[in-house]
Amino acid sequence: MQTDMWAGTRTGNSEMLDKFIRIIPDFPKPGILFRDITPMLANVDAFQHSIELMAQRVLKHDAEELVAIESRGFLFGAALSRYLGMPLHLVRKPGKLPGTTLSESYALEYGNDSLEVHTDTIRPGGRYAIVDDLIATGGTAGATCRLIEKCQGVVACCLFLIELGDCQGRARLGDYRIESILYYD
Amino acid sequence: MQTDMWAGTRTGNSEMLDKFIRIIPDFPKPGILFRDITPMLANVDAFQHSIELMAQRVLKHDAEELVAIESRGFLFGAALSRYLGMPLHLVRKPGKLPGTTLSESYALEYGNDSLEVHTDTIRPGGRYAIVDDLIATGGTAGATCRLIEKCQGVVACCLFLIELGDCQGRARLGDYRIESILYYD
Repeated sequence: MQTDMWAGTRTGNSEMLDKFIRIIPDFPKPGILFRDITPMLANVDAFQHSIELMAQRVLKHDAEELVAIESRGFLFGAALSRYLGMPLHLVRKPGKLPGTTLSESYALEYGNDSLEVHTDTIRPGGRYAIVDDLIATGGTAGATCRLIEKCQGVVACCLFLIELGDCQGRARLGDYRIESILYYD
Repeated sequence: MQTDMWAGTRTGNSEMLDKFIRIIPDFPKPGILFRDITPMLANVDAFQHSIELMAQRVLKHDAEELVAIESRGFLFGAALSRYLGMPLHLVRKPGKLPGTTLSESYALEYGNDSLEVHTDTIRPGGRYAIVDDLIATGGTAGATCRLIEKCQGVVACCLFLIELGDCQGRARLGDYRIESILYYD
Protein backbone atom coordinates (compact mmCIF):
# COMPACT_ATOMS: atom_id res chain seq x y z
CA MET A 1 0.00 0.00 0.00
CA GLN A 2 1.33 3.44 -0.93
CA THR A 3 1.16 6.00 1.81
CA ASP A 4 1.54 8.95 -0.56
CA MET A 5 -2.03 8.49 -1.71
CA TRP A 6 -3.21 10.22 1.42
CA ALA A 7 -0.19 12.17 2.61
CA GLY A 8 0.06 15.90 2.59
CA THR A 9 -3.51 16.97 2.01
CA ARG A 10 -6.81 16.35 3.65
CA THR A 11 -8.61 16.19 0.32
CA GLY A 12 -6.29 13.75 -1.48
CA ASN A 13 -7.63 12.49 -4.82
CA SER A 14 -11.18 13.31 -3.88
CA GLU A 15 -11.93 15.89 -6.58
CA MET A 16 -14.22 13.52 -8.52
CA LEU A 17 -16.41 13.13 -5.45
CA ASP A 18 -17.03 16.84 -4.98
CA LYS A 19 -19.34 17.09 -7.97
CA PHE A 20 -21.67 14.49 -6.44
CA ILE A 21 -22.11 16.51 -3.24
CA ARG A 22 -25.11 18.77 -3.80
CA ILE A 23 -25.33 22.12 -2.04
CA ILE A 24 -28.80 22.92 -0.68
CA PRO A 25 -29.05 26.50 0.63
CA ASP A 26 -30.98 27.32 3.80
CA PHE A 27 -31.31 23.75 5.07
CA PRO A 28 -32.11 22.85 7.79
CA LYS A 29 -32.47 26.57 8.52
CA PRO A 30 -31.79 29.95 6.86
CA GLY A 31 -28.12 30.72 6.25
CA ILE A 32 -26.91 27.10 6.29
CA LEU A 33 -25.42 25.55 3.13
CA PHE A 34 -26.27 21.87 3.48
CA ARG A 35 -23.95 19.34 1.81
CA ASP A 36 -26.19 16.59 0.46
CA ILE A 37 -24.50 13.22 -0.07
CA THR A 38 -27.50 11.49 -1.67
CA PRO A 39 -26.37 12.09 -5.30
CA MET A 40 -23.08 10.41 -4.42
CA LEU A 41 -24.81 7.36 -2.96
CA ALA A 42 -26.85 7.04 -6.14
CA ASN A 43 -23.70 7.00 -8.30
CA VAL A 44 -22.04 3.59 -8.16
CA ASP A 45 -18.53 4.77 -9.02
CA ALA A 46 -18.60 7.77 -6.72
CA PHE A 47 -19.83 5.82 -3.68
CA GLN A 48 -17.26 3.10 -4.33
CA HIS A 49 -14.51 5.70 -4.64
CA SER A 50 -15.55 7.33 -1.36
CA ILE A 51 -15.27 3.97 0.38
CA GLU A 52 -11.85 3.29 -1.12
CA LEU A 53 -10.56 6.67 0.07
CA MET A 54 -12.06 6.26 3.52
CA ALA A 55 -10.65 2.73 3.80
CA GLN A 56 -7.13 4.08 3.24
CA ARG A 57 -7.54 6.35 6.24
CA VAL A 58 -8.76 3.48 8.44
CA LEU A 59 -5.69 1.44 7.52
CA LYS A 60 -3.34 4.41 7.96
CA HIS A 61 -4.21 4.50 11.65
CA ASP A 62 -4.08 0.73 12.18
CA ALA A 63 -7.73 0.62 13.23
CA GLU A 64 -9.03 -2.90 13.74
CA GLU A 65 -12.77 -2.32 14.04
CA LEU A 66 -15.32 0.33 13.05
CA VAL A 67 -17.82 2.35 15.09
CA ALA A 68 -20.58 3.98 13.03
CA ILE A 69 -22.65 6.91 14.30
CA GLU A 70 -26.41 6.92 13.61
CA SER A 71 -27.73 7.42 11.04
CA ARG A 72 -25.76 8.54 7.97
CA GLY A 73 -22.65 7.10 9.57
CA PHE A 74 -24.32 3.70 9.17
CA LEU A 75 -24.04 4.07 5.37
CA PHE A 76 -20.27 4.47 5.43
CA GLY A 77 -19.65 2.20 8.41
CA ALA A 78 -21.47 -0.71 6.82
CA ALA A 79 -19.84 -0.27 3.42
CA LEU A 80 -16.39 0.04 5.02
CA SER A 81 -17.04 -2.98 7.20
CA ARG A 82 -17.67 -5.12 4.12
CA TYR A 83 -14.84 -3.54 2.10
CA LEU A 84 -12.23 -3.98 4.82
CA GLY A 85 -13.63 -7.10 6.48
CA MET A 86 -13.80 -5.37 9.86
CA PRO A 87 -16.35 -5.76 12.67
CA LEU A 88 -18.95 -2.99 12.86
CA HIS A 89 -20.31 -1.47 16.06
CA LEU A 90 -23.15 1.04 16.36
CA VAL A 91 -23.47 4.24 18.34
CA ARG A 92 -27.13 5.21 18.42
CA LYS A 93 -29.56 7.82 19.63
CA PRO A 94 -31.08 7.29 23.09
CA GLY A 95 -33.42 4.33 23.51
CA LYS A 96 -32.54 2.60 20.25
CA LEU A 97 -30.02 -0.02 21.41
CA PRO A 98 -31.81 -2.84 23.21
CA GLY A 99 -29.02 -4.20 25.41
CA THR A 100 -27.21 -2.67 28.38
CA THR A 101 -25.76 0.66 27.28
CA LEU A 102 -23.45 3.47 28.28
CA SER A 103 -24.52 7.01 27.43
CA GLU A 104 -22.65 10.25 26.70
CA SER A 105 -24.21 13.66 26.22
CA TYR A 106 -23.06 16.44 23.93
CA ALA A 107 -24.03 20.05 23.43
CA LEU A 108 -26.41 21.20 20.71
CA GLU A 109 -26.92 24.82 19.71
CA TYR A 110 -29.79 24.86 22.18
CA GLY A 111 -29.65 22.18 24.86
CA ASN A 112 -28.10 18.72 24.86
CA ASP A 113 -28.53 15.34 23.25
CA SER A 114 -26.86 12.01 23.91
CA LEU A 115 -25.55 8.87 22.23
CA GLU A 116 -25.39 5.28 23.45
CA VAL A 117 -23.26 2.20 22.88
CA HIS A 118 -23.75 -1.39 24.02
CA THR A 119 -21.45 -2.05 26.97
CA ASP A 120 -20.45 -5.50 25.66
CA THR A 121 -19.37 -4.54 22.14
CA ILE A 122 -16.16 -2.52 22.58
CA ARG A 123 -13.08 -4.61 23.37
CA PRO A 124 -10.60 -3.23 25.95
CA GLY A 125 -7.43 -2.33 24.07
CA GLY A 126 -9.06 -2.68 20.65
CA ARG A 127 -8.35 0.05 18.08
CA TYR A 128 -11.50 1.67 16.70
CA ALA A 129 -12.12 4.00 13.75
CA ILE A 130 -15.15 6.21 14.34
CA VAL A 131 -17.07 6.73 11.09
CA ASP A 132 -19.62 9.38 10.17
CA ASP A 133 -20.61 11.23 7.02
CA LEU A 134 -19.72 14.72 8.25
CA ILE A 135 -17.93 16.62 10.97
CA ALA A 136 -19.19 20.08 11.87
CA THR A 137 -18.66 21.05 15.53
CA GLY A 138 -17.60 17.51 16.43
CA GLY A 139 -20.17 17.04 19.19
CA THR A 140 -21.31 13.56 18.22
CA ALA A 141 -17.78 12.42 17.39
CA GLY A 142 -16.52 13.66 20.76
CA ALA A 143 -19.27 11.81 22.60
CA THR A 144 -18.42 8.68 20.63
CA CYS A 145 -14.73 8.98 21.56
CA ARG A 146 -15.72 9.17 25.21
CA LEU A 147 -17.98 6.13 24.89
CA ILE A 148 -15.18 4.05 23.38
CA GLU A 149 -12.76 5.13 26.08
CA LYS A 150 -15.28 4.42 28.85
CA CYS A 151 -15.22 0.85 27.49
CA GLN A 152 -11.39 0.94 27.55
CA GLY A 153 -11.14 0.90 23.77
CA VAL A 154 -8.64 3.03 21.85
CA VAL A 155 -9.80 5.68 19.36
CA ALA A 156 -7.49 5.06 16.40
CA CYS A 157 -9.06 7.85 14.32
CA CYS A 158 -12.24 9.79 13.63
CA LEU A 159 -13.10 9.52 9.93
CA PHE A 160 -15.57 11.61 7.96
CA LEU A 161 -16.43 11.94 4.31
CA ILE A 162 -16.97 15.70 4.72
CA GLU A 163 -15.35 18.24 7.04
CA LEU A 164 -16.91 21.68 7.48
CA GLY A 165 -13.83 23.66 8.44
CA ASP A 166 -15.67 26.74 9.68
CA CYS A 167 -17.33 24.74 12.43
CA GLN A 168 -14.00 24.02 14.15
CA GLY A 169 -14.73 20.38 14.90
CA ARG A 170 -11.10 19.35 14.33
CA ALA A 171 -9.86 21.84 16.91
CA ARG A 172 -12.56 20.96 19.42
CA LEU A 173 -11.70 17.25 19.23
CA GLY A 174 -8.19 18.07 20.46
CA ASP A 175 -5.63 15.32 20.19
CA TYR A 176 -7.72 12.72 18.39
CA ARG A 177 -6.60 11.85 14.85
CA ILE A 178 -9.16 13.41 12.49
CA GLU A 179 -9.45 12.33 8.85
CA SER A 180 -11.76 13.73 6.20
CA ILE A 181 -12.00 13.18 2.45
CA LEU A 182 -13.73 16.42 1.39
CA TYR A 183 -12.93 19.67 3.15
CA TYR A 184 -15.09 22.77 2.83
CA ASP A 185 -14.41 26.13 4.46
CA MET B 1 -25.88 -18.18 -10.68
CA GLN B 2 -27.82 -21.12 -9.25
CA THR B 3 -31.43 -20.40 -8.49
CA ASP B 4 -31.77 -23.35 -6.13
CA MET B 5 -29.76 -21.50 -3.53
CA TRP B 6 -32.85 -19.49 -2.65
CA ALA B 7 -35.72 -21.57 -3.96
CA GLY B 8 -38.23 -23.34 -1.80
CA THR B 9 -37.72 -21.77 1.59
CA ARG B 10 -37.71 -18.33 3.04
CA THR B 11 -34.87 -19.14 5.38
CA GLY B 12 -32.53 -20.76 2.84
CA ASN B 13 -29.04 -21.43 4.16
CA SER B 14 -29.40 -18.86 6.88
CA GLU B 15 -29.07 -21.09 9.92
CA MET B 16 -25.56 -19.84 10.73
CA LEU B 17 -26.92 -16.30 10.99
CA ASP B 18 -29.56 -17.10 13.57
CA LYS B 19 -27.06 -17.54 16.38
CA PHE B 20 -25.84 -13.96 15.89
CA ILE B 21 -29.32 -12.50 16.38
CA ARG B 22 -29.67 -11.80 20.09
CA ILE B 23 -33.08 -11.96 21.73
CA ILE B 24 -33.74 -9.14 24.21
CA PRO B 25 -36.96 -9.63 26.18
CA ASP B 26 -39.27 -6.72 26.98
CA PHE B 27 -37.72 -4.24 24.55
CA PRO B 28 -38.86 -1.64 23.63
CA LYS B 29 -41.75 -2.50 25.97
CA PRO B 30 -42.98 -5.39 28.14
CA GLY B 31 -43.96 -8.53 26.25
CA ILE B 32 -41.90 -7.80 23.12
CA LEU B 33 -39.00 -10.10 22.17
CA PHE B 34 -36.60 -7.80 20.37
CA ARG B 35 -34.31 -9.33 17.73
CA ASP B 36 -30.98 -7.54 18.06
CA ILE B 37 -28.78 -7.59 14.95
CA THR B 38 -25.77 -5.89 16.53
CA PRO B 39 -23.88 -9.13 17.35
CA MET B 40 -24.19 -10.09 13.67
CA LEU B 41 -22.76 -6.75 12.50
CA ALA B 42 -19.80 -7.26 14.83
CA ASN B 43 -19.04 -10.67 13.31
CA VAL B 44 -17.28 -10.26 9.97
CA ASP B 45 -18.31 -13.62 8.51
CA ALA B 46 -21.93 -13.38 9.65
CA PHE B 47 -22.47 -9.88 8.28
CA GLN B 48 -20.84 -10.85 4.99
CA HIS B 49 -23.01 -13.96 4.76
CA SER B 50 -26.16 -11.91 5.40
CA ILE B 51 -25.23 -9.61 2.53
CA GLU B 52 -24.56 -12.53 0.19
CA LEU B 53 -27.95 -14.05 0.99
CA MET B 54 -29.76 -10.74 0.62
CA ALA B 55 -27.97 -10.04 -2.67
CA GLN B 56 -29.31 -13.29 -4.13
CA ARG B 57 -32.85 -12.09 -3.45
CA VAL B 58 -32.19 -8.73 -5.11
CA LEU B 59 -30.95 -10.49 -8.24
CA LYS B 60 -33.80 -13.01 -8.20
CA HIS B 61 -36.26 -10.18 -8.80
CA ASP B 62 -34.15 -8.36 -11.39
CA ALA B 63 -33.92 -5.25 -9.26
CA GLU B 64 -31.62 -2.60 -10.68
CA GLU B 65 -31.30 -0.18 -7.79
CA LEU B 66 -31.74 -0.18 -4.00
CA VAL B 67 -33.90 1.90 -1.67
CA ALA B 68 -32.85 1.77 2.00
CA ILE B 69 -35.18 2.73 4.85
CA GLU B 70 -33.78 4.79 7.76
CA SER B 71 -31.96 3.89 9.85
CA ARG B 72 -31.04 0.19 10.20
CA GLY B 73 -31.97 -0.28 6.56
CA PHE B 74 -29.01 1.97 5.78
CA LEU B 75 -26.65 -0.73 7.09
CA PHE B 76 -27.90 -3.36 4.67
CA GLY B 77 -28.65 -0.98 1.79
CA ALA B 78 -25.13 0.45 1.82
CA ALA B 79 -23.42 -2.93 2.09
CA LEU B 80 -25.60 -4.37 -0.70
CA SER B 81 -24.98 -1.32 -2.87
CA ARG B 82 -21.24 -1.92 -2.72
CA TYR B 83 -21.55 -5.72 -3.05
CA LEU B 84 -23.84 -5.58 -6.07
CA GLY B 85 -22.58 -2.32 -7.60
CA MET B 86 -26.07 -0.83 -7.53
CA PRO B 87 -27.17 2.78 -6.93
CA LEU B 88 -28.50 3.47 -3.44
CA HIS B 89 -31.44 5.74 -2.61
CA LEU B 90 -32.61 6.78 0.85
CA VAL B 91 -36.06 6.90 2.39
CA ARG B 92 -35.86 8.96 5.55
CA LYS B 93 -37.84 10.25 8.48
CA PRO B 94 -39.56 13.63 8.04
CA GLY B 95 -37.33 16.68 7.71
CA LYS B 96 -34.08 14.78 7.12
CA LEU B 97 -33.79 14.92 3.32
CA PRO B 98 -32.74 18.40 2.21
CA GLY B 99 -34.07 18.47 -1.35
CA THR B 100 -37.63 18.48 -2.68
CA THR B 101 -39.43 15.46 -1.26
CA LEU B 102 -42.56 13.38 -1.48
CA SER B 103 -44.05 12.11 1.76
CA GLU B 104 -46.16 9.06 2.70
CA SER B 105 -47.70 8.38 6.07
CA TYR B 106 -48.21 5.03 7.77
CA ALA B 107 -50.01 3.87 10.89
CA LEU B 108 -48.28 3.28 14.19
CA GLU B 109 -49.85 1.53 17.15
CA TYR B 110 -50.91 4.94 18.35
CA GLY B 111 -51.08 7.62 15.67
CA ASN B 112 -49.15 8.01 12.43
CA ASP B 113 -45.67 8.69 11.18
CA SER B 114 -44.32 9.39 7.71
CA LEU B 115 -41.37 8.77 5.42
CA GLU B 116 -39.89 10.91 2.66
CA VAL B 117 -37.96 10.43 -0.57
CA HIS B 118 -36.25 12.95 -2.84
CA THR B 119 -38.47 13.53 -5.87
CA ASP B 120 -35.51 13.47 -8.28
CA THR B 121 -33.91 10.19 -7.26
CA ILE B 122 -36.35 7.47 -8.42
CA ARG B 123 -36.29 6.79 -12.18
CA PRO B 124 -39.64 6.17 -13.92
CA GLY B 125 -39.69 2.52 -14.98
CA GLY B 126 -36.65 1.63 -12.88
CA ARG B 127 -36.82 -1.57 -10.80
CA TYR B 128 -36.13 -1.01 -7.10
CA ALA B 129 -35.44 -3.41 -4.21
CA ILE B 130 -36.58 -1.94 -0.90
CA VAL B 131 -34.16 -2.90 1.89
CA ASP B 132 -34.65 -2.88 5.64
CA ASP B 133 -33.42 -4.94 8.55
CA LEU B 134 -36.81 -6.23 9.67
CA ILE B 135 -40.46 -6.50 8.67
CA ALA B 136 -43.07 -6.53 11.41
CA THR B 137 -46.43 -5.03 10.39
CA GLY B 138 -44.98 -3.70 7.13
CA GLY B 139 -45.98 -0.08 7.73
CA THR B 140 -42.70 1.51 6.70
CA ALA B 141 -42.23 -0.88 3.77
CA GLY B 142 -45.74 -0.13 2.50
CA ALA B 143 -45.14 3.61 2.68
CA THR B 144 -41.86 3.12 0.80
CA CYS B 145 -43.61 1.12 -1.94
CA ARG B 146 -46.09 3.97 -2.36
CA LEU B 147 -43.29 6.54 -2.54
CA ILE B 148 -41.52 4.60 -5.29
CA GLU B 149 -44.75 4.22 -7.26
CA LYS B 150 -45.61 7.91 -6.86
CA CYS B 151 -42.30 8.52 -8.66
CA GLN B 152 -43.35 5.96 -11.33
CA GLY B 153 -40.71 3.48 -10.24
CA VAL B 154 -41.38 -0.28 -10.03
CA VAL B 155 -41.09 -2.14 -6.71
CA ALA B 156 -39.15 -5.27 -7.73
CA CYS B 157 -39.16 -6.67 -4.18
CA CYS B 158 -39.18 -5.79 -0.50
CA LEU B 159 -36.18 -7.41 1.20
CA PHE B 160 -35.57 -7.87 4.92
CA LEU B 161 -33.01 -9.70 6.98
CA ILE B 162 -35.67 -10.65 9.55
CA GLU B 163 -39.39 -11.34 9.20
CA LEU B 164 -41.61 -11.46 12.29
CA GLY B 165 -44.36 -13.73 11.02
CA ASP B 166 -46.82 -13.01 13.81
CA CYS B 167 -47.03 -9.36 12.80
CA GLN B 168 -48.57 -10.20 9.40
CA GLY B 169 -46.50 -7.75 7.41
CA ARG B 170 -46.31 -10.08 4.41
CA ALA B 171 -50.10 -10.35 4.20
CA ARG B 172 -50.60 -6.63 4.69
CA LEU B 173 -48.24 -5.77 1.85
CA GLY B 174 -50.50 -7.68 -0.51
CA ASP B 175 -49.10 -8.40 -3.96
CA TYR B 176 -45.60 -7.06 -3.47
CA ARG B 177 -42.80 -9.64 -3.60
CA ILE B 178 -41.55 -10.07 -0.03
CA GLU B 179 -38.19 -11.68 0.74
CA SER B 180 -36.67 -12.38 4.14
CA ILE B 181 -33.61 -14.31 5.24
CA LEU B 182 -34.58 -15.16 8.83
CA TYR B 183 -38.19 -15.97 9.66
CA TYR B 184 -39.48 -16.01 13.25
CA ASP B 185 -43.04 -16.85 14.32
